[in-house]
Amino acid sequence: MSGPFFGSRWIEKPEHVTELEPTALPRGFRAAGIAAGLEPDGPDVGVLYCERPQTVSAARFTTNARVGAPVVASREADLDRLRAVVANSGGSNTGDGARGLETARATQELAAELLDVEAAQVGVASTGVIGTELPREKLLAGVRSAVQQLGDDADGFSRAILTSDRAPKRACLEVELPGGQVRLAAQAKGAGMISPRFATMLCFVQTDAEMSAETVELLTGVTVKRSFDRITVDGQLSTSDTVFVLAGGASGVRIEPESAAELRFGEALDALLRQLALLMVSDGEGAKRVGRIVVRGESEAVEPVARAIANSNLVKTALHGGDPNFGRILQAAGMVYPPGNGFVADLEIEGRLVVSGGEAIVDDLRELEPLVQGQEVEYVLTLPGDGGETEVFFSDLSPEYVHFNAEYTT
Amino acid sequence: MSGPFFGSRWIEKPEHVTELEPTALPRGFRAAGIAAGLEPDGPDVGVLYCERPQTVSAARFTTNARVGAPVVASREADLDRLRAVVANSGGSNTGDGARGLETARATQELAAELLDVEAAQVGVASTGVIGTELPREKLLAGVRSAVQQLGDDADGFSRAILTSDRAPKRACLEVELPGGQVRLAAQAKGAGMISPRFATMLCFVQTDAEMSAETVELLTGVTVKRSFDRITVDGQLSTSDTVFVLAGGASGVRIEPESAAELRFGEALDALLRQLALLMVSDGEGAKRVGRIVVRGESEAVEPVARAIANSNLVKTALHGGDPNFGRILQAAGMVYPPGNGFVADLEIEGRLVVSGGEAIVDDLRELEPLVQGQEVEYVLTLPGDGGETEVFFSDLSPEYVHFNAEYTT
Repeated sequence: MSGPFFGSRWIEKPEHVTELEPTALPRGFRAAGIAAGLEPDGPDVGVLYCERPQTVSAARFTTNARVGAPVVASREADLDRLRAVVANSGGSNTGDGARGLETARATQELAAELLDVEAAQVGVASTGVIGTELPREKLLAGVRSAVQQLGDDADGFSRAILTSDRAPKRACLEVELPGGQVRLAAQAKGAGMISPRFATMLCFVQTDAEMSAETVELLTGVTVKRSFDRITVDGQLSTSDTVFVLAGGASGVRIEPESAAELRFGEALDALLRQLALLMVSDGEGAKRVGRIVVRGESEAVEPVARAIANSNLVKTALHGGDPNFGRILQAAGMVYPPGNGFVADLEIEGRLVVSGGEAIVDDLRELEPLVQGQEVEYVLTLPGDGGETEVFFSDLSPEYVHFNAEYTT
Repeated sequence: MSGPFFGSRWIEKPEHVTELEPTALPRGFRAAGIAAGLEPDGPDVGVLYCERPQTVSAARFTTNARVGAPVVASREADLDRLRAVVANSGGSNTGDGARGLETARATQELAAELLDVEAAQVGVASTGVIGTELPREKLLAGVRSAVQQLGDDADGFSRAILTSDRAPKRACLEVELPGGQVRLAAQAKGAGMISPRFATMLCFVQTDAEMSAETVELLTGVTVKRSFDRITVDGQLSTSDTVFVLAGGASGVRIEPESAAELRFGEALDALLRQLALLMVSDGEGAKRVGRIVVRGESEAVEPVARAIANSNLVKTALHGGDPNFGRILQAAGMVYPPGNGFVADLEIEGRLVVSGGEAIVDDLRELEPLVQGQEVEYVLTLPGDGGETEVFFSDLSPEYVHFNAEYTT
């Protein structure tokens, strides 16, 4: 990734936010990533640790009914007081039964022992192919090695969690609050709800702001809903999606509930996670463009309609081809819209009205071609009724996606 | 299509059924298909007509909230006493507002006048690109020409309805009933719920068996649910899907409700529509293989799970690549399975158990490769609970599908 972190026109960098070195960490945090041989090459085991005993935290996990062992083990941890995270690529540790769960728990226990925290204060996350054994001894040796190499830079950690990603996804922000400056950093991986071939989005967030466990929980809930919940590459929900947010408090700047500081910090976290989510979409296998569908109308209708459009292979192939074929958008919307005579929509593409009251007002689709050639394409669909508005960001569907995912796992 | 019509191992031809010439028609029916210039070449307007005033009928349409004008016009017709059908390719007449609806109604009126039936006895169906004008004068001229050329062969008609299909989909069966022989014929088009790039599945069924309007309605409902409702190419529901079933009675063989004749005729209709549905799947753009997913378990769970698997791009790309990566099947199933600890599944591929009680029992995925190289691949997933069983047939997802659908409509 070159250029500034906030690269999408859809994400506004708050005025009180400054980008620092993307691999920097907030005060009190240490991290490392090392090569343990789980992947053919490169770092594959990462450890993140906060020195502050009073650290509070929050977490979110996949809603898939079938989850990996690390999700099971992490859910049982004390998610409001995590001090450390162990993450690995090279295997998602999903579908390996009791053996897999023992590996996840052994990881928590070893990290706890080495870092002098409780096992219940260690979150774990794994990514890679589903249904194979994750080599326990290699992983534990990697944890030992990473703990020895903990430092104040997130470069190795942010690389250890990658699978099919084209580049690390990470940022460190300085956030100006009324009481002083705090840092907010995150490292993420993923190329969609599920990354093609491998799986999973992971995101690890750290801040040295001081806040209660309730505040970090609240802020995590709100911002995850507006970021990772609003993207799709292929509509496939992973077995292992995980977000951990740790607030250590080393800055001494306190964020009280419902304060101006909470609002400003929330804006920064929101922008950070939304930009990371967009990086996942634009990094979807073979992706050339990112679409944003905004749907307005009755509150019950907007969400399924936006998802149906964002996950339609016909809409996604049209986006790939730079084809303004908007009939597919209305067809996908109609598929999930409650049947009846009320489906009369307006559709804008890049601010130009192309369907009004359900009727196309464009004589020649060729006129619209220039609108859909860019790297980001925006569609706004207005349905009958009001009270609801939502958005979903989605990648195009390319022949490369198919090639990549049709290859043998074997 | 070469070889016998019943080509899938999943469809058993009933013993009392004999394949006739695929373009033959039941007694009392006449058909024609002519080139009216709606498509660059080949026939594009078809007329089907039953001479018998006592003809009864039934129809089914897409459940998409956004429908084409022909669906609106046909729904307002007397669907239990249709005598004629006008179908065209080269334009779906969807999204063209009042002008499109006038075109559909003018078509009904002209055909009615020429065939001496009521306008309410004419069903109409159109297929092709969405959102453009269907040239009315060309279509009406085509109807005049087709009516003049009506004959006792369905070849032209079955070709006039094709868009992206590789070959006509049609059959004529002789069905041995207790009271004598009847004929049952059908002509269909489509490459899935929606055909890539263009749209729509259409199917026109004729029989010379004699029955009540209630019987043809009942049989249509049951058999459409087991055939066209159980296939997917890309999970995209068309704006124009239409099935018309006409029973003229010219054979003099009567089918009474709940009789042995009804059962046997129903079996024949069922096999006919299921095989036609499978032809649509195997004709999906770029399709190389057809998958069949059977899901057993709680009655509420089986349907969404089967759909999630059949519409997963990861499952479909694995099918394309001949990749036995069954982790993707469990991931897709878990995505829609109610969250909790109860998701413990068994999975068979081509009769071989690969997951038992939620745990993989295969050491080396390579062993499974030979199972997934054929043209038809069967997966059986057994979930907790019982009382439910369903199946969905689906095509693979290929780079050719993407190429085809990423091209300009413009």
